[in-house]
Amino acid sequence: MSARARRPGPTVRTRVHEFAETGERRREDRLATEEPLEIRLAWPGADARRAWVTMRTPGHDFELAAGWLVHEGLTSADGIATVAYCTDVTLAPEQEFNVVTVTLAAPPLREVGHRHDASSSGSSACGVCGKDSIGDVLAHPAAAVRWSGPLPDADTVRSLPDRLREHQSVFARTGGVHAAAVVDAAGEILVVREDVGRHNALDKVTGARVLAGESPPQACLVVSGRAGFELVQKAVAAGAGALVAVGAPTSLAVQLAADAGLALYGFTGARRTVRYC
Amino acid sequence: MSARARRPGPTVRTRVHEFAETGERRREDRLATEEPLEIRLAWPGADARRAWVTMRTPGHDFELAAGWLVHEGLTSADGIATVAYCTDVTLAPEQEFNVVTVTLAAPPLREVGHRHDASSSGSSACGVCGKDSIGDVLAHPAAAVRWSGPLPDADTVRSLPDRLREHQSVFARTGGVHAAAVVDAAGEILVVREDVGRHNALDKVTGARVLAGESPPQACLVVSGRAGFELVQKAVAAGAGALVAVGAPTSLAVQLAADAGLALYGFTGARRTVRYC
Repeated sequence: MSARARRPGPTVRTRVHEFAETGERRREDRLATEEPLEIRLAWPGADARRAWVTMRTPGHDFELAAGWLVHEGLTSADGIATVAYCTDVTLAPEQEFNVVTVTLAAPPLREVGHRHDASSSGSSACGVCGKDSIGDVLAHPAAAVRWSGPLPDADTVRSLPDRLREHQSVFARTGGVHAAAVVDAAGEILVVREDVGRHNALDKVTGARVLAGESPPQACLVVSGRAGFELVQKAVAAGAGALVAVGAPTSLAVQLAADAGLALYGFTGARRTVRYC
Repeated sequence: MSARARRPGPTVRTRVHEFAETGERRREDRLATEEPLEIRLAWPGADARRAWVTMRTPGHDFELAAGWLVHEGLTSADGIATVAYCTDVTLAPEQEFNVVTVTLAAPPLREVGHRHDASSSGSSACGVCGKDSIGDVLAHPAAAVRWSGPLPDADTVRSLPDRLREHQSVFARTGGVHAAAVVDAAGEILVVREDVGRHNALDKVTGARVLAGESPPQACLVVSGRAGFELVQKAVAAGAGALVAVGAPTSLAVQLAADAGLALYGFTGARRTVRYC
């Protein structure tokens, strides 16, 4: 690792120009940091190859990589051998903390590459409709591991967003990031992570549990935003018993949650929450 | 097109269980529809192939496809020959409105496939850092077409979110979708579109202008959420003079806007807005 490399922080300072009803002024502001992260995947007999690039807030990068791999069904939680920043000598210093290589103990459980890549099957056999999208998620072995213990009750669920906010330090400074958490059945917050990408925040909390040796399934996941299909898909892959969202769910998210046996809550706040299945 | 096919609407009804401080009740609710859309690309001498799959709210699908292609730099606005729902006989009825084929007048301006696909270059030459990500956007010919006319003033900018909301019919029913708009320098709203995906909403408004023969550049784009790198990238590709976001921008979004000469506003409401460059 070069001595020149400087690890990026979660926020940066900037000068802004504010126009208010009452007048205008120049002041200092803080922005959430956004930088690309390339996740490379290697396994016995296979050199590291690019699996994905995501724009993310630096920090907890190993957790992001591990959680993404588990959520994508590329590996089980115990299949991750090592996670490291890339030591590729051709990387420029500013790239050193933007490339993470995960080495698996065995080949990935499915083909590397996102379902929606241009390179993935374009034949109609693959199916492009909600039913097929759900079938795709449920057909994967990862979806078979489900939380079977107790779940938070409705009062506990309503308390989660306020308590999550106490942990959202980057949001407090920038107003620009999403948060996700793993909580137990009593509502105790086990881990919280923030990221400019709502999907990344969920990847990071699952990755944090995985790298701590606390494999899925989990009682409950919490997200600070809305619950679309891809977030529910991650919750299913993580074996969660419940997913609590502060915002609205979508039609396909509700269908997938129902088919997977996931308790899905939306519009959650101190005053109310809505259970969709 | 089969007689069995039923075109999905932007919202669906569902039964929910609401838990409030004051008690619980079962009631009906409306969800924003989310379904996959596959965009296929064809050009003279090349059969249609999958370019991308996105989860989206059905409606304005041709605009979504056209806008996405322009934002990705795959074609200029006048390079689109035809857009049609797929008539592939192997598609099941429920897939018929989920596959759109765009035929270009000439080969695409760059390789088909998203920059971040696993299949795209994994060499370090490609570069994985903010500076390279910005360079990548600015190097594209599409980024050279820039709005050079007048821009909305700060008072007009502050008025945009409230006026946008008047057009957000799906949001009003579901609380679950983002909106984007194209507005002129006087703040007149030229087109508004909604989608569960914030990126899709922006694709749709650019696509609407393109398919109406109103090519980029545009004076101003508005988005109901935050402004991350990918949204600013789309605004740059659309040749916008300004991008107004209701939420926060990220560090890389501000850098790209500054380098591209795009006026970027965040935290915009009736009382204030913040200009980042």
